[in-house]
Amino acid sequence: MPAVGRDRNHIMRKHSREIVAFQGEPGAFSQEAVRRLLGDQVDVLPCQRFEEVFQSLKSEASSAAVIPIENTLAGSVHENYDHLLHFDFRILGETSVRIVHNLIAPPGIRFRQVRRVFSHPVALNQCLDFFAKNPHVEKVPFYDTAGSVKMIMEERLTDAAGIASALAAGIYGASILKKSIEDDRQNFTRFFLLRRSGWKAKSAPEAPKGWKTSLVFTTRNIPGSLFRALSAFALRDLNLAKIESRPLRGKPWEYLFYMDFIGHVEEERSRNALRHLAELADFLRVLGCYPRGD
Amino acid sequence: MPAVGRDRNHIMRKHSREIVAFQGEPGAFSQEAVRRLLGDQVDVLPCQRFEEVFQSLKSEASSAAVIPIENTLAGSVHENYDHLLHFDFRILGETSVRIVHNLIAPPGIRFRQVRRVFSHPVALNQCLDFFAKNPHVEKVPFYDTAGSVKMIMEERLTDAAGIASALAAGIYGASILKKSIEDDRQNFTRFFLLRRSGWKAKSAPEAPKGWKTSLVFTTRNIPGSLFRALSAFALRDLNLAKIESRPLRGKPWEYLFYMDFIGHVEEERSRNALRHLAELADFLRVLGCYPRGD
Repeated sequence: MPAVGRDRNHIMRKHSREIVAFQGEPGAFSQEAVRRLLGDQVDVLPCQRFEEVFQSLKSEASSAAVIPIENTLAGSVHENYDHLLHFDFRILGETSVRIVHNLIAPPGIRFRQVRRVFSHPVALNQCLDFFAKNPHVEKVPFYDTAGSVKMIMEERLTDAAGIASALAAGIYGASILKKSIEDDRQNFTRFFLLRRSGWKAKSAPEAPKGWKTSLVFTTRNIPGSLFRALSAFALRDLNLAKIESRPLRGKPWEYLFYMDFIGHVEEERSRNALRHLAELADFLRVLGCYPRGD
Repeated sequence: MPAVGRDRNHIMRKHSREIVAFQGEPGAFSQEAVRRLLGDQVDVLPCQRFEEVFQSLKSEASSAAVIPIENTLAGSVHENYDHLLHFDFRILGETSVRIVHNLIAPPGIRFRQVRRVFSHPVALNQCLDFFAKNPHVEKVPFYDTAGSVKMIMEERLTDAAGIASALAAGIYGASILKKSIEDDRQNFTRFFLLRRSGWKAKSAPEAPKGWKTSLVFTTRNIPGSLFRALSAFALRDLNLAKIESRPLRGKPWEYLFYMDFIGHVEEERSRNALRHLAELADFLRVLGCYPRGD
């Protein structure tokens, strides 16, 4: 475990646990991803903005960060791809979390007492069937899913509930009144685990499902340029898990591609494919190589 | 202009304007996209959910629909691609709208009176520099950007402002206190214009920047399958404008691809490329062919 660089309490914290940054209030779905990727024996650093998550890793206020990278309904989080390009970190793990929305209230409150339900508008909008079935319940937009549970507990509201993760209920000592009230169960978010470049694992990581490598590259937008870029992988029987194009702002004829392929970056055919791609691409960066998640 | 099918006032509305559905309150950025795509001489049908937008077009409550399909920060709107697959409509136009957030208050209110700013949390979070510079102003989450302006005008609040489009200020008779307070000016949303299949234009559409064709297809996830699929375009010098993979839920080894290429679907090389792709793809559908937007 790396030392926490700028920790002013470094003596007291000498044997302490590592600090993992994420965006959101305690109990956010990102914290569930932290738990899946690193277990319970870590401390967390909740941040307001994604950029703060990356800054905290850079300034060594945290030794790892967990960020959402894509959602099955909402698509890729381009902002985080931008930060991955700007900050020179490594992706060292991935996991997918199913977004399960629960109706959460203080202990002892019954569902028939609930008149107002607080949550982030995106979460409220993902539970419209619940509100259609319960027209006496008012939707109240709030800043954050987990934050709505925190507020209801702090204010000791007796006619209100929040919509958030089961983890949020546990963290704030609240009770789940109704589980899984989301309209669409096919709502998954994929998260990356990031560390600073040069970080070394204490022991070799296990990869029971094999390895995945993520990279980003640009090509000139001439017919066939992506086709040629993909030949670097197809000719070596390397399988792609994701590809996405994104126009480069300010460079109307250039594209950025995000790509994941199945394989370890140090395998010979991966190295050959990346060398081949480097010939064809104007810009190429490997963002990380990590055990395949669920 | 097509007749509005189930309009109960069809006699009175005989010479009326067409009805265009979009998601959001009047003044939403989608309405700005309606204006760019169809001008001011249309009536609008604001809907709460994207699915309602599609249903209104199916039931002929509207004769056109405008939907966001991707955003430069947040990525593709997968939900709308899902609806495009489920409903058999045609994409007949595209446009990009820069997301400009304005601070909007009732006429006569001055900035120094403003203590609370209402808006959708996503919009509030895209104006963090403004709030950092104005710490006396409280962020208050609200259901909708344009809806926050509507509410402030209806409630005649004298200490509050909303964050929304310039169009929302115009619609609700409010004043813009500060223009363009968003942190990131590279925030664009691309919208599609949809109509029912079989709709015929009164006159041939103009395409000064050429044509674009959007399609969706699936391949088996074997190494090189995307490479082979792209060969259908590369071998005919057809240029791609977008490609994105999406795992098919419940079919772990299959992928859906969204693709846009530059060209008209009726050109000979386009027809040849699509016939070639059909040999390689398990499923293929052309979603539409339309003049290239900005």
